Amino acid sequence: MSLINHQVQLASRPDGEPSIANFRHVQSPVAALQDGQVLVRNHYLSLDPYMRGRMNDGKSYAAPQPLDAVMQGGAVGEVVESRHPHFAAGDKVVGAGGWQQYAVFDGATPGLLRKVDTTHIPLQAYLGAVGMPGVTAWVGLNMIIAPKAGETVVVSAASGAVGGVLGQLTKARGCRVVGIAGGPEKCAYTVGELGFDACVDYKAHRDFKALSAALKDAAPGGIDGCFENVGGLILDAVMARMNAFGRIALCGMIAGYNGQPLPMLNPSLILISRLKMQGFIVSEHMDLWPEALKELGQRVASGQLKYRETVAQGLESAPEAFLGLLKGRNFGKQLVKLV
Amino acid sequence: MSLINHQVQLASRPDGEPSIANFRHVQSPVAALQDGQVLVRNHYLSLDPYMRGRMNDGKSYAAPQPLDAVMQGGAVGEVVESRHPHFAAGDKVVGAGGWQQYAVFDGATPGLLRKVDTTHIPLQAYLGAVGMPGVTAWVGLNMIIAPKAGETVVVSAASGAVGGVLGQLTKARGCRVVGIAGGPEKCAYTVGELGFDACVDYKAHRDFKALSAALKDAAPGGIDGCFENVGGLILDAVMARMNAFGRIALCGMIAGYNGQPLPMLNPSLILISRLKMQGFIVSEHMDLWPEALKELGQRVASGQLKYRETVAQGLESAPEAFLGLLKGRNFGKQLVKLV
Repeated sequence: MSLINHQVQLASRPDGEPSIANFRHVQSPVAALQDGQVLVRNHYLSLDPYMRGRMNDGKSYAAPQPLDAVMQGGAVGEVVESRHPHFAAGDKVVGAGGWQQYAVFDGATPGLLRKVDTTHIPLQAYLGAVGMPGVTAWVGLNMIIAPKAGETVVVSAASGAVGGVLGQLTKARGCRVVGIAGGPEKCAYTVGELGFDACVDYKAHRDFKALSAALKDAAPGGIDGCFENVGGLILDAVMARMNAFGRIALCGMIAGYNGQPLPMLNPSLILISRLKMQGFIVSEHMDLWPEALKELGQRVASGQLKYRETVAQGLESAPEAFLGLLKGRNFGKQLVKLV
Repeated sequence: MSLINHQVQLASRPDGEPSIANFRHVQSPVAALQDGQVLVRNHYLSLDPYMRGRMNDGKSYAAPQPLDAVMQGGAVGEVVESRHPHFAAGDKVVGAGGWQQYAVFDGATPGLLRKVDTTHIPLQAYLGAVGMPGVTAWVGLNMIIAPKAGETVVVSAASGAVGGVLGQLTKARGCRVVGIAGGPEKCAYTVGELGFDACVDYKAHRDFKALSAALKDAAPGGIDGCFENVGGLILDAVMARMNAFGRIALCGMIAGYNGQPLPMLNPSLILISRLKMQGFIVSEHMDLWPEALKELGQRVASGQLKYRETVAQGLESAPEAFLGLLKGRNFGKQLVKLV
């Protein structure tokens, strides 16, 4: 074969806010497949907030994204050629395809590449509601928040790929669900389309006092569970409204991704309200994925679980789309469509 | 009877640091017992850091200490007169006797007053290692930290009534135990007498960098569990040295008891290191007390569990001794001896 592969690589690490200059486009021929390998053509790339953390070189839960290498990330696509018996040309797959047109996988490594059924579920949903973001919501909800019917749960970045699933799963468990999102359009979507009970527009409440008051209106009985994607002021305001024995699943702190200091205003609330706060990474709970994917797949296939996508066109648009995601310019799951 | 009772009452709420002027000594006759009541003469009063929080009127986990009423608190003593069939004159008891010479109890209310066996355990130990402080250590250790043998656990206020028990119980579970205490004498005690593996003198390491470095020396493999009594700089420094999946039992934040702001420097470490941080109050876990008291009683009776006491003499010394406790002037359990 003489396929040409186009990639986006990390060219330099950001100093503070990342920019287009941190990325580089390169092309190179796709090498011939060896025994056991599988060649996949990526149809959709997944853009996710966690990628920002990996652009840094500091201590974090995952190894940093290597410089001068293809940007790592999830992708869905179709097998073009297979030299492994578990895969065949034409198979629809999800895996860590990266920001590139073609990806080569070792077919024998468990979990690296997985065949998916697109009869009732669109291929790209395996990057969203039936993929890592959906499972992230499921794990945080079931492993940490574990809400009882009638409790109130708050989720930040509520219209995003994780937040939207979190809110709908929580509603299905009989809870009151309050979103926090940026702007009236996103708020209206979580209430009108996703069935949230209320949503607080953080852009309309810029300081602690205003945000606390808005949360009090939206959750008059206090907050029992919180799925936190943002941190900073939003977490401070939620903590002040938590009921005794509240649980906070800490999934992301996108407010601090560019390195700005992000202290917690009043940690003594953890003691005063006997809160449990726990950070987690979905890839460390692989034992929960099958059960999570089963519920998420059924809900998406039956139309009970809704989601929204923002789709950038073409590989070259990936860096700009990613920078937009970090600023909340996307609406729902941010994808890049290659095919 | 014409007994005269001497009490210490709360005369005013402190504005910042409390002082002797917040307390008042009063005397009044002990009223005649009614059916079902038990009259106890207090032998020892317990002084505990949680009492500082209750002197305030703000939101907290317990109702504030009422003004112009006897200071509430645990005490051990002897039944003087009983009009309840479960108690008899001469019984040794532990209960919420308060800062006074005589206390009247309703003998029928479960948990208010409990007979204790002083054959192998000194009466005042029921206010310390075999009482609320010991159970506090036991609950935080078993319910939240749940350490595995070989892990490293750090405890602040390490020479105190709670910290000393925590460290010894943790050692008995096969862990490396590192204390944090104020001054070389307290540090030497935790290592030399209580068997801790190391102790960091926070008074010799006054900023984040110095304290972090000292913790790195004392816990070269990182920290897996933390029992936190202090908060502020100490918690910040411990968090920076926590290993992945570390557990922090938040028992007290005495650094902020006088109302000074006490932000957490870097809460993103909860996410980066996938920490679990949980606040708890021992009185909300009464189901665990019997098992805890059984283990603690056996260890004290057999001499395996050691503790130290600072004993102030006479009821009138209670306020001064309490203010000293808040400044760390005590060594081990702070008691007031009345008889």
